Amino acid sequence: MEHTNPSMRIARAPQGLPAPEDFFLVDEPMPRPGEGEVLYRAVYMSLDPSMRRKLPAPEGVPAPLGGTRQVGELMIAGLPPPARGHTGGFVGQVAESRHPAFAQGDLVQGGCWWQTYQCVPGDSLEKLPEGTRLGEALGLLGQHGFVSWCGMRNIGKVKPGETVLVSAAGGAIGMIAGQLAKADGARVIGIASGDKVQYVVDELGFDACIDRKAENVSDALDRLCPKCIDVYFDNVGGDVMLAAYDRMADFGRIVICGMASEYNAPEEPFGASLRPVLRKRLRIEGFVVYDHYDDQFAQFQAEMRALIAAGRMKYRIEVIDGFANAPEALARLLEGRNKGKMIVRLGPDPTG
Amino acid sequence: MEHTNPSMRIARAPQGLPAPEDFFLVDEPMPRPGEGEVLYRAVYMSLDPSMRRKLPAPEGVPAPLGGTRQVGELMIAGLPPPARGHTGGFVGQVAESRHPAFAQGDLVQGGCWWQTYQCVPGDSLEKLPEGTRLGEALGLLGQHGFVSWCGMRNIGKVKPGETVLVSAAGGAIGMIAGQLAKADGARVIGIASGDKVQYVVDELGFDACIDRKAENVSDALDRLCPKCIDVYFDNVGGDVMLAAYDRMADFGRIVICGMASEYNAPEEPFGASLRPVLRKRLRIEGFVVYDHYDDQFAQFQAEMRALIAAGRMKYRIEVIDGFANAPEALARLLEGRNKGKMIVRLGPDPTG
Repeated sequence: MEHTNPSMRIARAPQGLPAPEDFFLVDEPMPRPGEGEVLYRAVYMSLDPSMRRKLPAPEGVPAPLGGTRQVGELMIAGLPPPARGHTGGFVGQVAESRHPAFAQGDLVQGGCWWQTYQCVPGDSLEKLPEGTRLGEALGLLGQHGFVSWCGMRNIGKVKPGETVLVSAAGGAIGMIAGQLAKADGARVIGIASGDKVQYVVDELGFDACIDRKAENVSDALDRLCPKCIDVYFDNVGGDVMLAAYDRMADFGRIVICGMASEYNAPEEPFGASLRPVLRKRLRIEGFVVYDHYDDQFAQFQAEMRALIAAGRMKYRIEVIDGFANAPEALARLLEGRNKGKMIVRLGPDPTG
Repeated sequence: MEHTNPSMRIARAPQGLPAPEDFFLVDEPMPRPGEGEVLYRAVYMSLDPSMRRKLPAPEGVPAPLGGTRQVGELMIAGLPPPARGHTGGFVGQVAESRHPAFAQGDLVQGGCWWQTYQCVPGDSLEKLPEGTRLGEALGLLGQHGFVSWCGMRNIGKVKPGETVLVSAAGGAIGMIAGQLAKADGARVIGIASGDKVQYVVDELGFDACIDRKAENVSDALDRLCPKCIDVYFDNVGGDVMLAAYDRMADFGRIVICGMASEYNAPEEPFGASLRPVLRKRLRIEGFVVYDHYDDQFAQFQAEMRALIAAGRMKYRIEVIDGFANAPEALARLLEGRNKGKMIVRLGPDPTG
């Protein structure tokens, strides 16, 4: 049986939003696992706004926009080994194992290259628990769930009765962050656009959701958060962040989780004074989820499984077919035109 | 025996730095304590950059610069009763008591008006422990010590071997903040000006001190903090804050304690992007010391007394004579031309 191995490489530095022409698809040779390695077949890849930052910058553009990858190289998701598989952006199935802990057919999380078949050190792979549905492993129980949980638990520290604002509320992280805050007894306001606005309220149970494309976010916040915002979970940065910042309550916490609105633009100064940080005793804090896997991933998974079992955690997934459609989907994601958590299907899902 | 009661009122809103003409000194009637009240004689008043924010704003200047006091009113230090005395800016001696817990001659902390004799509710006064030297009660063991301690303990959380940067290092708070970080095993760099630079290194034991008027702060930081800054204790805001922000280490903490360089100017946007907060997992946090008296003041005093007893806490005080000289001194303080913690002597010190 002959395998083909579709792989996506970088053709050029994107000008603005990534476009299909910035990548090229090639059928690369099938890799063979060495001693201690596992060959696995990727089934789903997570598509994330932060991928924009991995792409190289055009000449003359300052470094922060430019990422870790060069033209000609394989595109990347998550972190390369030796980082553990649960930190990455793929789930799949073992095709051939030369590592004692894995056997053909095992469901695993790991790998990082935009490549269908990858050889990875077995020690960097995570075996997924029996009964796992692969799509779920990348969302609620995977990195996006963990990001949301880390931000809320370690920085947001929501108390019952507080008002929590979540931007990109219909996105992979916002959906979960808001539901975690609801589970903690908060009043939760979302910011989203398109049909996600209704979804966030009707299906996820947010108390309200602002349509950022249909109304002025500042005015809507004045209306919906008259007593100000205790926790702002920021996934977007930019003007939405500024509008929330102006309306923080004393002792408010701003969780800097992502800056989707800025990934596609040069860095800009924060357009507000820091005096409110002093006057209102605010905390502004950023985090990177990779720092917390060792200490907190098990605790997160236990809590999340309990919430899912209790029916308190819903999630919407938009499936994209194949690497070839991923660049266009990434551009839509960066513009907020996704319909929930985006994952790319790379082959048949044995759990689907 | 006839008493006079020198009192300082606000003559007009300052234009820029406060000037003597913005105040007027009057001899007000001697107050008589009612039931439960204490008449006390203020001996020292703490002079603080934040007093600038109590003063009214000239017409047409946006509110944040304008303070809580109006033209014609008594000037204020600290918080008015019922706030407890340890949160205020005066120490003195009981002249007459109609409260069972106080007797004539007791040393106390309390009161808030720029007035030599004040009647205050006895319940708002703090009796000072035997052996207290009044000047020390306003500095190391008083609000400035507590501010420094709260910032370092609750936000800075210094670990041994870390690099800590303290601005206004020769000021009332910076002197203590830096010594606390030294006691915690950090490498401590100060920023100061004038003869305070030498003092901070030679007498207080900082590892180095940048003269912000004699050298470029950014260049000096590159030289002195090549491995970046783990904790920046910010007393000044403005350009110095920006220079430090650019050089924070991963997981760095910025303690927003004061913005002395900005109190005299309209609010300005923070001139940097917030992306490093995400990338470097920074925490930027402000605090107001008044929130912590109930929970932490006793613990602070115990720790500070131990450090003083161990000879690990030095302090320099500049004494100003009388309310009449206070406005000029406040202007010098706002420009950083003080020589240590400034206190105003209002009468004979029975402990001096």
